Amino acid sequence: MLNFSFVNPTQIHFGEQQILEIKHSIPKGAKVLVVYGGGSIRKNGIYEQVVAALSDFTWGEFAGIEPNPSYQTCMRAVELIQTQHYDFILAVGGGSVIDGCKFIAAAALFDGEPWDILAEGAQINKALPIGVVLTLPATGSESNSFSVISNIDTQDKLPFASGLVQPQFAVLDPNVMQSLPKRQLTNGVVDAFVHIMEQYLTYPVDAKVQDRFAEGLLLTLIEEGPKVLKEEASYQTRANVMWSATMALNGLIGAGVPQDWSTHMIGHEITALYGLDHAQTLAIILPRMMAEQQHEKREKLLQYAERVFNLDTTEPDKAISDAILLTEQFFQQLNMLTRFSDHGLGEEVAPQVCAQLERHGMVALGEQQAVTLEKSKRILLASV
Amino acid sequence: MLNFSFVNPTQIHFGEQQILEIKHSIPKGAKVLVVYGGGSIRKNGIYEQVVAALSDFTWGEFAGIEPNPSYQTCMRAVELIQTQHYDFILAVGGGSVIDGCKFIAAAALFDGEPWDILAEGAQINKALPIGVVLTLPATGSESNSFSVISNIDTQDKLPFASGLVQPQFAVLDPNVMQSLPKRQLTNGVVDAFVHIMEQYLTYPVDAKVQDRFAEGLLLTLIEEGPKVLKEEASYQTRANVMWSATMALNGLIGAGVPQDWSTHMIGHEITALYGLDHAQTLAIILPRMMAEQQHEKREKLLQYAERVFNLDTTEPDKAISDAILLTEQFFQQLNMLTRFSDHGLGEEVAPQVCAQLERHGMVALGEQQAVTLEKSKRILLASV
Repeated sequence: MLNFSFVNPTQIHFGEQQILEIKHSIPKGAKVLVVYGGGSIRKNGIYEQVVAALSDFTWGEFAGIEPNPSYQTCMRAVELIQTQHYDFILAVGGGSVIDGCKFIAAAALFDGEPWDILAEGAQINKALPIGVVLTLPATGSESNSFSVISNIDTQDKLPFASGLVQPQFAVLDPNVMQSLPKRQLTNGVVDAFVHIMEQYLTYPVDAKVQDRFAEGLLLTLIEEGPKVLKEEASYQTRANVMWSATMALNGLIGAGVPQDWSTHMIGHEITALYGLDHAQTLAIILPRMMAEQQHEKREKLLQYAERVFNLDTTEPDKAISDAILLTEQFFQQLNMLTRFSDHGLGEEVAPQVCAQLERHGMVALGEQQAVTLEKSKRILLASV
Repeated sequence: MLNFSFVNPTQIHFGEQQILEIKHSIPKGAKVLVVYGGGSIRKNGIYEQVVAALSDFTWGEFAGIEPNPSYQTCMRAVELIQTQHYDFILAVGGGSVIDGCKFIAAAALFDGEPWDILAEGAQINKALPIGVVLTLPATGSESNSFSVISNIDTQDKLPFASGLVQPQFAVLDPNVMQSLPKRQLTNGVVDAFVHIMEQYLTYPVDAKVQDRFAEGLLLTLIEEGPKVLKEEASYQTRANVMWSATMALNGLIGAGVPQDWSTHMIGHEITALYGLDHAQTLAIILPRMMAEQQHEKREKLLQYAERVFNLDTTEPDKAISDAILLTEQFFQQLNMLTRFSDHGLGEEVAPQVCAQLERHGMVALGEQQAVTLEKSKRILLASV
């Protein structure tokens, strides 16, 4: 186990009828800006629950945060906050809305050009407080300090992180998943699964608790993921998927272990260039990343094969290739496409994505910086 | 899964050389009272590390918090705080020191008779802030809000809990375990194991993440517990035991599931009456509690048998009795005595402990209130 410091200060309110809890969690007297996405919350009853919970507050709203939230849209919300003097942001949505709100919270109080937070890693010294009503389990953004923002003009998709933008509370009511389109549920399960893999599938540091927790989350998603796509999915299945997705990226399983994130870095470039959903890019890249890195990650791949897929590891090479295959089949079982060609893309992606990686300085990815541009290109070509 | 609200605000600093971190974690200008136990920290180098880290602070010390911290000793620390105006408590020790400091932190600012906090459940509205340097992994007290205090005069051992006394930070350096007596290491592993069982072995609520996490911690303690007792134990073994003990009782695995705690309630009375170590009482009671409650806990016992001990459950009754036996054998493998008679006690314990349970209103224990006084008596008699 490596040294680490860890705390997760986000108060989680989990379960049915918990949206009302926000009335106790937002500071009294706050002027609240409710921020959401394309408006689905106005059709599924979540908006009404939020409005009821805000009856004691002065509040306004900003709609239209898009998937892969854009700098341009976020800056319109920043302007609204600055002119109307909102002092609390309530994000009602999934990872895109929450990521957008984190940037908005930082940009609204930033001295200087907010784009520098993303492009230059400029230091944030203050941010508006954020609360979350989660409508789509996937990214874990509801209880972490990370955000990824896209610039429509420049085709950049860039991350930033700050403890100052970590939500103060997050409401997780599994019932909100009932009205979600299947594509979003699929994306959510795959995204959470790959988040776990990025923190688990590295090299062993004898971190037994972290490994067991990661494996427990993977097993839960494998059991519950396919069930959650069905109309008749139970509350408990939804609850298990929702809690897994939050635990997948709240800092706990990644504390004291190496982390990879190379699949995500390549995935971000694919979304920026071709508009594929974030999770779609991960499902394409991860199986080939595992194959390409199977020597560097051999020990953990064998542990994964044995503990997650219950494979016999007496023939290690076969166990590893079976585990990779089962991973891709799990994605497919969720109706996720796992090849560029499924999306009408071909070998042209390899040089184009590599050029973007190079432009963003991502020439050696992964926990051991072993994923060179050349390897990224091989992974991309193998994924067509 | 049941509804829950969860946050754990204790900042964990985990690893080698982390004791120095306290200099950044204690508020500037604080007047710090360092509270510790019998003085072992003055022999193993921890005291010197703490002194070095406090060089920028005004500080004093209070030694002598005993195992099963007493109300009487704690009140002497309260007097010192009140006369010397300390405003930050640094607990350097294991569960007893930390539990004592929680009571001290609350009692020092309490309007009224502090004993009422324990005896009457009197409401706490403020408490001094606490930081922890953990010297013995066991109770999880370093990152939770619970405390158990004994009254020497009345033979009471009573719990209280308040978010106000949860430590603000805790330093976990596995190297501190090197100098621990084996008995304390054994106690720590057993205590942590039973904490997990009290939150796991109830009835199923389809909380897959919590179950997998609990099982992961149990598996880690079974693998690493016996190794940690050896002189040549590795840093990583110590780290895995230490992190397991913290995760065992920091609120996470108990969020959204029923909880039992009947073994603890009976155990507290045994310690109060006969002076057995806390963990010794748990190791005696748990196996008989499992046997007595095997119908109420049947489903989870089978899951435990299968996932933790890899037992074949086609003959369920055999699997359950084997799992109970393996649990007791695990304790014995840690050189833990598991019978009253091993401590020179006999059948007299049953009426005496039951009289104490009755006096404290504990006439129906467990997640289903199924452990009546009659059953407690049977458990005690079977444990002789």
